Amino acid sequence: MITSINNARIRHIQVLAKKAKVRREEGLFIVEGPRMFCESPPERIERAYLSESYYREMADRHILDQIPWELVADRVFAQAAETVHSQGVLCVVRRADYGLESLLQKADPLLLLLEDLQDPGNVGTIFRTAEGAGVDGIILTKNCVDIYNPKTIRSTMGSVYRMPFVCLTDEKISPVLDSLKEKGVATCAAHLQGRCLYDRENYTGGTAFLIGNEGNGLSEELSAAADKKVRIPMEGRLESLNAGVAAAILMYEAHRQRCRAKGL
Amino acid sequence: MITSINNARIRHIQVLAKKAKVRREEGLFIVEGPRMFCESPPERIERAYLSESYYREMADRHILDQIPWELVADRVFAQAAETVHSQGVLCVVRRADYGLESLLQKADPLLLLLEDLQDPGNVGTIFRTAEGAGVDGIILTKNCVDIYNPKTIRSTMGSVYRMPFVCLTDEKISPVLDSLKEKGVATCAAHLQGRCLYDRENYTGGTAFLIGNEGNGLSEELSAAADKKVRIPMEGRLESLNAGVAAAILMYEAHRQRCRAKGL
Repeated sequence: MITSINNARIRHIQVLAKKAKVRREEGLFIVEGPRMFCESPPERIERAYLSESYYREMADRHILDQIPWELVADRVFAQAAETVHSQGVLCVVRRADYGLESLLQKADPLLLLLEDLQDPGNVGTIFRTAEGAGVDGIILTKNCVDIYNPKTIRSTMGSVYRMPFVCLTDEKISPVLDSLKEKGVATCAAHLQGRCLYDRENYTGGTAFLIGNEGNGLSEELSAAADKKVRIPMEGRLESLNAGVAAAILMYEAHRQRCRAKGL
Repeated sequence: MITSINNARIRHIQVLAKKAKVRREEGLFIVEGPRMFCESPPERIERAYLSESYYREMADRHILDQIPWELVADRVFAQAAETVHSQGVLCVVRRADYGLESLLQKADPLLLLLEDLQDPGNVGTIFRTAEGAGVDGIILTKNCVDIYNPKTIRSTMGSVYRMPFVCLTDEKISPVLDSLKEKGVATCAAHLQGRCLYDRENYTGGTAFLIGNEGNGLSEELSAAADKKVRIPMEGRLESLNAGVAAAILMYEAHRQRCRAKGL
């Protein structure tokens, strides 16, 4: 049992929770709380840390046979968790690496490309909605908030384990657009000045929705490169919808059309 | 100019930012930041507080002719704003009181009923989306997060001033349901076990979507009382969608149908 806050592993957890750079270099991230613990694929759990009280109350301990884990004194867990809000359990998990190729394998994929999104809650919620809407994969530009930020991870409600995604390591987006075009995937920019109403376009073929940054919308470059600019109409005096809401409306419109096309 | 953190008005602002009870009793709330300052109807601004630097850089001062305002020393503003994050400007604003009757005046209204929503960001985003989707009013149950919570206000992006709403003061929901029924408004519960697919129902007549609490969904009482339970289909292994996302998908489906019905 770990009984000191100065334990090297506890310190490592705290660093991983705070620093995107360390997460990237080590290929590890932190998930917190009982819910995300249960959602985590056992084979990706590097090590789980359970507070004494959590362990004592734990209903189903069989998962502990499959993973490396360690007990942490309540007092130490509480101190460590001051930065991580974990309700008695947290895990160090190995990141999965998907390539763009794997996202493009399916015929007529439904994809999202998120450009420079900054709000961890937004990105997490988009992952969650995307799973629900049957999206096949998400591409995040280099300047998006880190998907492995603990807040993003929490907001995905587990979808981060089930939704294939690619975090671009290069700022250049044109090679990705070229790959999409090559595979016949139409790029549809969510755009306030879009000429097409979002519900008049056909998304049953390969489609990638391009979603822009919360404050600034899509860059000129991506807007100009998109095959279509689609507009979600707005009543009242609203300037824009929340990026996660706009993405949800587009994804579910595509889902609706795809279900109907299949006669569902 | 206010030069002391102990100034009675500064203290009053801090109390209003923190305490829902005081906000309720005094019928006042705090809005923060340049954006919400510009969105605030001048006639409802009780008093605006501007830091010296903000005032100095302010492009358009004509609004100051229409409202009571006061200058605050930068140092004091920064200290006061430690609790309120205001970028140099905040206002004390009078709350508007809408009655349920006023929400039901329009023929075939599109309404939302939010049951016990707890996340300020969710509620704010729902207000914003609702304005975009042409919703006529929002009803919040007694146990919803305070709409005048500074975080909720910020997330509305100004919609709080334009979207009529009623915060119920009684826990009993049945009188509200009776009023809706009387006016011919169909209640449609967003429900994971709903029998009807959300996009197969007609929302062009008077419609109120019932949206449940983030963790628990709709109460048994509201689910049972609803005229229809509608389901948003979900792929993958998702348990539920975010409440704000579910509300957005329903509101925009209603908006889509209403536009089409009008030949738009």
